Formats: sequence, structure tokens, C-alpha cells
Amino acid sequence: MEHCHNENIEENVEKKPLVPRTQVEKDQLITRLKRIEGQVRGIQKMIDEDRYCVDILIQVTAVNNALKKVGMNLLERHTNHCVSDAIKSGNGEQAIDELMKVIEQFSRA
Amino acid sequence: MEHCHNENIEENVEKKPLVPRTQVEKDQLITRLKRIEGQVRGIQKMIDEDRYCVDILIQVTAVNNALKKVGMNLLERHTNHCVSDAIKSGNGEQAIDELMKVIEQFSRA
Amino acid sequence: MEHCHNENIEENVEKKPLVPRTQVEKDQLITRLKRIEGQVRGIQKMIDEDRYCVDILIQVTAVNNALKKVGMNLLERHTNHCVSDAIKSGNGEQAIDELMKVIEQFSRA
Amino acid sequence: MEHCHNENIEENVEKKPLVPRTQVEKDQLITRLKRIEGQVRGIQKMIDEDRYCVDILIQVTAVNNALKKVGMNLLERHTNHCVSDAIKSGNGEQAIDELMKVIEQFSRA
Repeated sequence: MEHCHNENIEENVEKKPLVPRTQVEKDQLITRLKRIEGQVRGIQKMIDEDRYCVDILIQVTAVNNALKKVGMNLLERHTNHCVSDAIKSGNGEQAIDELMKVIEQFSRA
Repeated sequence: MEHCHNENIEENVEKKPLVPRTQVEKDQLITRLKRIEGQVRGIQKMIDEDRYCVDILIQVTAVNNALKKVGMNLLERHTNHCVSDAIKSGNGEQAIDELMKVIEQFSRA
Repeated sequence: MEHCHNENIEENVEKKPLVPRTQVEKDQLITRLKRIEGQVRGIQKMIDEDRYCVDILIQVTAVNNALKKVGMNLLERHTNHCVSDAIKSGNGEQAIDELMKVIEQFSRA
Repeated sequence: MEHCHNENIEENVEKKPLVPRTQVEKDQLITRLKRIEGQVRGIQKMIDEDRYCVDILIQVTAVNNALKKVGMNLLERHTNHCVSDAIKSGNGEQAIDELMKVIEQFSRA
């Protein structure tokens, strides 16, 4: 219920989210992540069956790409809601600092 | 049993691997992938609980990094065994072409 | 003078930037890019002198990292000024769409 | 003349390269790097002229992509010559270790 609120930084503040994820949004993300979970299990099976290394690497690459898409989706929603809201209420600087840090780490992963 | 053999390319050739993965190697990789699978389930839970977007993104980044390590491990083994063997038997060119393609895709994922 | 204005999209609109780059900001970025330019020339020299491939690759990696830092700097400024301004004036959606596209391409480069 | 030889590691060994870069290979790489150098100067000009941040970021991304291609070219040649030669003469392990390290750094840059 508090996805615009970084609990680590402001532990005692009780903020209400402007726009919590709808059930549809949650379901879409969770469906994608379940598919990714299945792909990770598939890679375990490939290793167990001693499949060709390059074929396994192609699967690892596919999972990374799928996770990057999930990450971009989260990033977009975060910017559209949490960061936008912070900017509108005059607290953009901290939100943008945090956004830049997470983009930098995410873009190297 | 045939991890040095690309089944897609040479379907009728029955190659024996020089060095199949040992049980220890398999177990290590599968253990790591089970942990990654657990992390992906953890991300689903975070979304279900409407956790803070940036905290979820940090987890997505961590999974990508963990998968990159698995990928580097597979890449190293592939180069040490399959590519090395191909080079020694005079068929290095095709193996290196394939290696470069997979590195390029993997490094962008 | 118009760095918050995408000339390609809205050619006839004459927008004034909220905050044009100061001379200090420009000088810092240009100094960094001149250093990068020098590094690129250094790589040419290494190739001309037939230097060790891995040493050249390490230099290419260093230039990519330096360019990523310039990119993150531009991204931060863009978000702090252009995107923030668009959000405040109620036109955040288009600015954030554009921001996400450039982050996606940048993070894969 | 000694591009298969890491001067930093074995300073007193004088190794001759199996296959030094031909003048054609050098010219192709240097031509590409001169184009990259020109692009970096172009970015300086864009900053000086206060051009739109996103357009500058697209250019930074283009230079990173061009450098990645140069890097992949160097990586391929290194694997085809230096690493292959090391493997054939029974010294593959060290060459592959070094290769993996440079791939890991390069793929994150």
C-alpha cells in the first residue's frame, strides 16, 4: 500500500500512495515474473541434462532481457507516479537523486 | 552428455563431450539458479504487497547481476572446454564465431 | 539556448528553457569530453603501434565508462530541469515517455 | 609488433606475434576510431550550442555502440589469434582467465 514511500529512509513517516498499483497492473507484472521463474527452472533442467553451453547462455540472456523489461516497467511507473508527485510537491530533488542511482545500477546489471 | 555439441546446427552428428559437467559443477550451478528462482518469487511477493518501486528495482538489478555471474561461469567453461577443443582440432573458426555472437548478445542483456 | 525543447518533434514551437546550462556546467562537460576525445586518439595510437589486444580493450572499456558518466550527468540534468518542468506544467506524460526510451537505449549501449 | 604479448605481466619476455595486424586491419580500425573521435567532438559542439539534452544523449549512446563494435572486433581478433595460439601451445588457461576478465569488464561498460 505504500509503494511511493521508501521505508528505509523515513521509517516513522506514514505516507499514503497517490496511486497504488491496480490489481490488473499487479497481475500483469506477476504473470511476467512467473514466466521468468519458469525460464530459470528451465535453465536448471538444461544444466541437469548437460545441454550445449551456448544454448544455455542464450536462455540466460533471454531471462536477463525479460527482467530488464520488468525493470523498465517499474521505472516508468515509479517516474510517472512517485517521482512526479515528489516534483509537484516541491520535493523533486531527493526523488531524482534516488532515481538516478537506481538507473545507474540497473543499467550496469 | 553432449554439452560441446550444438544440436541445432549438426543434428545428425553424434559428438561425445570431452569433459561433461561433473556432478559438483552441476550442483553448484543449480544451487545458484535455485537461489535466483527464489529471488524472482520474492519480487512477485514485493509486487503483491505493493512495496516501494525502488526497492523492487534494486532486487531486479540483483537478480540480473546474479544471472550475469552464472552466464560468465558458463562462458568460461565453454571456452575452456568446447572452444579450446575445437581450436586444438583445427575447427576453431566456427566455434569462435559462435562464441563472439553469444558474448555480444549476452553483454547487451 | 533551447535544451528543454526537442526541435525534431515540435519544430515551430519556440520554447524558452527554464534553466539553460551555465558556462561552468558547459565547461565541465566539454572538459570531460575533450579527455574522452584524447583517449580515443590514444586507442588509435595503440592500434598503430600494434599494442596488446587486451590492453586496447581495457582502454575501450574505460572510454565507455567515461561516456556513461557523461550520459548519467546529462540524464540527471534533463530530469531535474526539462522533465520536472514538464511535470509541473501538466505535460509530464510525453516527457516521461521520451525519458524512458532514451534510458532504455542508453542502458543497452 | 607484439600484440599477443602482455607487456605488463611478462616484461622481460620478448614474444613475437603469430599474426601481427595487417595494414588493412589497422586502417579499418583507425578509420572507425577517427569517426568516433569526430562524434565526440560533435557532442562537445552540441553542449556548447545548448542543444536538447535527449538529442545529446542519443549521440552519447551512438558513440557507446560504435565503441562496443570496435571492442567486439578486437575481442574476436584476440580470440582468433592470441588465445587460439596459447591454447594450441598448451597455455590456454591463463589466456582464457584474462579473456574472461576483460569480457566481464567490457560487458558492464
